[in-house]
Amino acid sequence: MTDISEYVKVQACKVSERLNVLLNTDAASVVSDAMRYSAEGGGKRIRPVLTLEFSRVCDGNLSAALDFGCAVEMIHTYSLIHDDLPCMDDDDMRRGKPSCHIAFGEDNALLAGDALLTKAFSVLSGVTGLPAENIVRAVGALSDFAGIDGMVGGQVLDLQFENTSPTAEEILKMYSLKTCALLKVSAVLGCLTAENCSDDAVSAACEYGENIGLAFQIVDDILDIIGDSEKLGKPIGSDTKNDKSTLVSIYGINKAKELADELTEKAISALDRLNGDTHILKEIALMLADRTF
Amino acid sequence: MTDISEYVKVQACKVSERLNVLLNTDAASVVSDAMRYSAEGGGKRIRPVLTLEFSRVCDGNLSAALDFGCAVEMIHTYSLIHDDLPCMDDDDMRRGKPSCHIAFGEDNALLAGDALLTKAFSVLSGVTGLPAENIVRAVGALSDFAGIDGMVGGQVLDLQFENTSPTAEEILKMYSLKTCALLKVSAVLGCLTAENCSDDAVSAACEYGENIGLAFQIVDDILDIIGDSEKLGKPIGSDTKNDKSTLVSIYGINKAKELADELTEKAISALDRLNGDTHILKEIALMLADRTF
Repeated sequence: MTDISEYVKVQACKVSERLNVLLNTDAASVVSDAMRYSAEGGGKRIRPVLTLEFSRVCDGNLSAALDFGCAVEMIHTYSLIHDDLPCMDDDDMRRGKPSCHIAFGEDNALLAGDALLTKAFSVLSGVTGLPAENIVRAVGALSDFAGIDGMVGGQVLDLQFENTSPTAEEILKMYSLKTCALLKVSAVLGCLTAENCSDDAVSAACEYGENIGLAFQIVDDILDIIGDSEKLGKPIGSDTKNDKSTLVSIYGINKAKELADELTEKAISALDRLNGDTHILKEIALMLADRTF
Repeated sequence: MTDISEYVKVQACKVSERLNVLLNTDAASVVSDAMRYSAEGGGKRIRPVLTLEFSRVCDGNLSAALDFGCAVEMIHTYSLIHDDLPCMDDDDMRRGKPSCHIAFGEDNALLAGDALLTKAFSVLSGVTGLPAENIVRAVGALSDFAGIDGMVGGQVLDLQFENTSPTAEEILKMYSLKTCALLKVSAVLGCLTAENCSDDAVSAACEYGENIGLAFQIVDDILDIIGDSEKLGKPIGSDTKNDKSTLVSIYGINKAKELADELTEKAISALDRLNGDTHILKEIALMLADRTF
């Protein structure tokens, strides 16, 4: 497991470096500082790493994949900034440091989120070395998976479930939108860096993203109960404290863990439909399921 | 003047109808309702009308122009929703009805804004009947003019100026980003619906948008002092109440009005560089400068 996490770290470094370049701006302002503050926050960069990896497997353009992945990471970062705002989850800490609105004020955090979301599409449009058709498909995929029928739709369900007791099925639907949508599009954008990527590759990428995403979210819920708050960079027990229904509160830890393992297996099976060498994607799926933070 | 305002109304109706279709969603939710509530709010639809008009002048694809214009209108609508939030301008009323966050709650308004911003790019990517290259250029233009170096950058300056006394030059810079950027890109996207639009047409479109935008904003400041709050759909005197520097507070009403007229003339001169029939664009510039609401 050490090898794969080292590999992911190296890839994540490339992503961070490129993000730094893309977010560098002449017009320095408190909001461009806030954008960089949150984008530099780190995290595992798992989404752009998937974009790079699917690009490699599909024999795509890796430099385009780096930018496609950075665009997804900008969307992910904006969603965390807006999610932490007082009118949403009201979280003061993120990845072990003050949330964007604590560090820069609510108004600047709101605008930093808006600007990152907008910048993601600027980055896609600026990619060179790919047919314009592929870029248009990437814009369509990213906006659809990130919008009201994707990630934002998942946030909507999350808000709706706040004072209700959703069923396991409803929770999985919410996870599928809130978490999986962005993982799916990370994988899909990797495929789209190959000039003539097959529909079957795109569909396998979606299936992989969906299943590692569900497993990821279930492991997240488990870690909220048995995790190490220092490693996680956030307090544990927040779901219980907020009386929030999760798959763990419905199924218990053991059955939830079993489900996460099944989903991971499904993700790995989907890789059989790709032609390239997928052993790293397999190890990433296993790493995410076995993580302790 | 009646003829042109009738013409604009007819075009605005086409835009509203198309927006309705584009914002129709299977997954009904409070946030998709909030998106439609704010998008239906009306307003003059001046941005998409400009897109249609520049498309016509450049002999472009009018059906593509309708969607390009709707995308700009979605960006404009999201910016109003986020701008009205308590952490920004904290405005309870917008276009004569309760602001989005008053009607739907802050959390849903935040997400509705995010979803509209994202949807704009989905709409661009779905346009048919144009070379993919033109769509990629449209995505690049919209994201750049709407983002941290455009409209959002203008919001940042607006926040920075809140407790300072900006110079006339600084205020104009803020207007150029906050207001003109989106008018410029409305015009530019119209040009981009023509397969081989010239760089000179795009540059003329920018110059027109910049100058009508500055004039528009100065007239807005004048109307905040001498306007009719019922016609405007918002209370007047808010700039004075908030002790906000405007070009009117620096120059006085008469000189501000002169400046608005000069800028309108500049906008009209820029039209000489276009080959098509530009008399409607000329009348729109005059209408905006002479408006009372």
